Amino acid sequence: MPQPATPVSPLAVAFPRLGPVAGVELAVGRAGLYKHERDDVLLMRFAPGTACAGVFTRHRVGSAPVDWCLARLPGGAGGARAVVVNAGCANSFTGAPGAAAAARVAEAAAKAVGCADEDVLLASTGVIGVLLDDAKITPRLPELAARLESGTWEDAGRAIMTTDTFPKGAAAIADIGGTPVNIAGIAKGSGMIAPDMATMLAFVATDAAIAPDVLRGLLRRLTPRTFNAVTVDGDRSTNDTLLLFATGQSGAPMIGRLGDPRLAEFAAKLEAVLLHLALQLVRDGEGASKFVKITVNGAKSPASARKIARTIAESPLVKTAFAGEDANWGRIVMAVGRADEPIDRTKVSVAFGQHLAARDGLIARGYSEEAMSAYMKNAELEVTVGVGVGEATATMWTCDLTKQYVAINGDYRS
Amino acid sequence: MPQPATPVSPLAVAFPRLGPVAGVELAVGRAGLYKHERDDVLLMRFAPGTACAGVFTRHRVGSAPVDWCLARLPGGAGGARAVVVNAGCANSFTGAPGAAAAARVAEAAAKAVGCADEDVLLASTGVIGVLLDDAKITPRLPELAARLESGTWEDAGRAIMTTDTFPKGAAAIADIGGTPVNIAGIAKGSGMIAPDMATMLAFVATDAAIAPDVLRGLLRRLTPRTFNAVTVDGDRSTNDTLLLFATGQSGAPMIGRLGDPRLAEFAAKLEAVLLHLALQLVRDGEGASKFVKITVNGAKSPASARKIARTIAESPLVKTAFAGEDANWGRIVMAVGRADEPIDRTKVSVAFGQHLAARDGLIARGYSEEAMSAYMKNAELEVTVGVGVGEATATMWTCDLTKQYVAINGDYRS
Repeated sequence: MPQPATPVSPLAVAFPRLGPVAGVELAVGRAGLYKHERDDVLLMRFAPGTACAGVFTRHRVGSAPVDWCLARLPGGAGGARAVVVNAGCANSFTGAPGAAAAARVAEAAAKAVGCADEDVLLASTGVIGVLLDDAKITPRLPELAARLESGTWEDAGRAIMTTDTFPKGAAAIADIGGTPVNIAGIAKGSGMIAPDMATMLAFVATDAAIAPDVLRGLLRRLTPRTFNAVTVDGDRSTNDTLLLFATGQSGAPMIGRLGDPRLAEFAAKLEAVLLHLALQLVRDGEGASKFVKITVNGAKSPASARKIARTIAESPLVKTAFAGEDANWGRIVMAVGRADEPIDRTKVSVAFGQHLAARDGLIARGYSEEAMSAYMKNAELEVTVGVGVGEATATMWTCDLTKQYVAINGDYRS
Repeated sequence: MPQPATPVSPLAVAFPRLGPVAGVELAVGRAGLYKHERDDVLLMRFAPGTACAGVFTRHRVGSAPVDWCLARLPGGAGGARAVVVNAGCANSFTGAPGAAAAARVAEAAAKAVGCADEDVLLASTGVIGVLLDDAKITPRLPELAARLESGTWEDAGRAIMTTDTFPKGAAAIADIGGTPVNIAGIAKGSGMIAPDMATMLAFVATDAAIAPDVLRGLLRRLTPRTFNAVTVDGDRSTNDTLLLFATGQSGAPMIGRLGDPRLAEFAAKLEAVLLHLALQLVRDGEGASKFVKITVNGAKSPASARKIARTIAESPLVKTAFAGEDANWGRIVMAVGRADEPIDRTKVSVAFGQHLAARDGLIARGYSEEAMSAYMKNAELEVTVGVGVGEATATMWTCDLTKQYVAINGDYRS
């Protein structure tokens, strides 16, 4: 574990049972990128013909592994045979030397698993501005390749953790044309979590046979409602990467069109997997003690609803009130009004769970401070806001801002 | 003091010597808007003919006192004879009953000081969503009017405090056409501080003779570089109000044109007063232990430079690193890249004080972690960032994000 002193999040969920996905092999190992002993490298190998699509950070600095993937997946989709993931070093803001280090890792991985360099994808997470010491990783790759069948999804989920306090996984089984297909994935992320993308790495694989462009279409449709609907601190990382692989080893028919009706159930199950992973990022938000779902109704447009929801979700004053179990609904009003989106202030409503705090721009009749304060003691909270100008709605998930967040981030590198 | 348990900010400055400004009278009193004993109402009276200009929150909910002022100062300028300010209740999100309560306060003040209702301005600060109990304030106003000469600027600065840990004042003397004129002002604000406007109230008065439109022009020019260049937590209030009064009692010639060369020195001195007040808000940022000046150079436009500076200044990960005295300059890079503004990532530079951390998109040659860590122990820090695409520059001031911020805001209402 990177932070042995940090206790597991009180909002943690157990790692689910993730069976093997045909055509996917895993191995984890220790490259020594941390001062203490822990797994910090993951190698994944995929069957020949595996399709891949990716979504990456829009951060303007980015990182060498993201640059590498963008070059290998033009337009966000293509094929892939392997992924190397390391924790402990983001290899971001490292210029040409960082790019060269990334290329050497890909080259070594290609040799180890028996594929072309360009069929290897890369992802890194850790401190920004430190050059990746690839000499620690490359010698480990042949060993990892030799025991590719040994790794479990849970091992993989642990190897990619940074300040995470628990490994994150999700799985589902869907039916495509009468054949069951498996979906399984892991993710990491805890701080520096914001939409587009959250600071996170996620690797999801299926044994379904789906064309790269269709995978990309699925990610475009599903990420706004999943990974891009969670925020911890509004800070966006240089390394965010979500990769989706389809090995085609299940025997299910090949899907070559996003509109294919046989894809409907798969898409729904994939969305559930992505959402489950995304919500685990919030449950492991640095220092989090509350898991909060924020829904905005009555907005002018979905984008407007989303901006208001995000403004509430990222307001330090709202988040500290959650941490203090203070039913300070006036701060929700504050955040709604500072989002700079159309609202009718005489129609604004705020509810915490079933408890109406405000209605029609005023404190609600029958408002009970005691009932509200009792509700705030729950570990999982729901806030629903109406802004009274339209029909659009959006939901975002976030956590509270605690002293523990400050403690974790005040001495992350020490 | 509103929070007797909160110690005075380590970044506090002493209240300066503020002499009387001809044509301005002050009185403070206790309306009992707090549970504990403290002054919570301020009455200011101005000489007949006093000009006034104001800048107000752009918050979409706003508050009854802001609505009142906007209606009395069409276009942001006009005349004024009195201001009533209360702490303890923002009278925001209180609908028609809130507006009626505000009107009753103005009416009572007009009667007490002997002017028309519409010559009274109002400002409130405190909890959002609670109706102002004007019956606590109106009976006090005749008493306050009877001892208008008794109050000092420091008393006034204290009466308007909420979570502030020290009263904030600033003063200057300028020359207009050979006659010395006084400028003096007070401000309050500590949390919910963000540009446009910071959560704050500020009242600045001069005995110069300046037309309302000229006062408004001065505020428009000066607020972007002063009150709108500070941020504590990015949260914007419903009640922000800056009022500037010119009583004309100094005997200096009347200034009726913004371009009048006799105004130049006054404008510079006024800017210094506004900046001093604004920086005191940061020095009293809730839980602040570091005062941080952030300058962005080489941006495409002033707005772009400003957005990058603000993104750095409001990043929770940057602010917690300051709190932890961690020279984690990678987080500055993170914030620069997520501001979504044009940058050349191969030219980005970051310096802390005189210590260059990064240059040309890479860690700087000769970077010394020890020197940087030693620098971070200072209470006042400077961060300079270059983004390498243009000539524009901007400066913002902020503070760190500490456990104390979370503690203060987790139980503000309790």
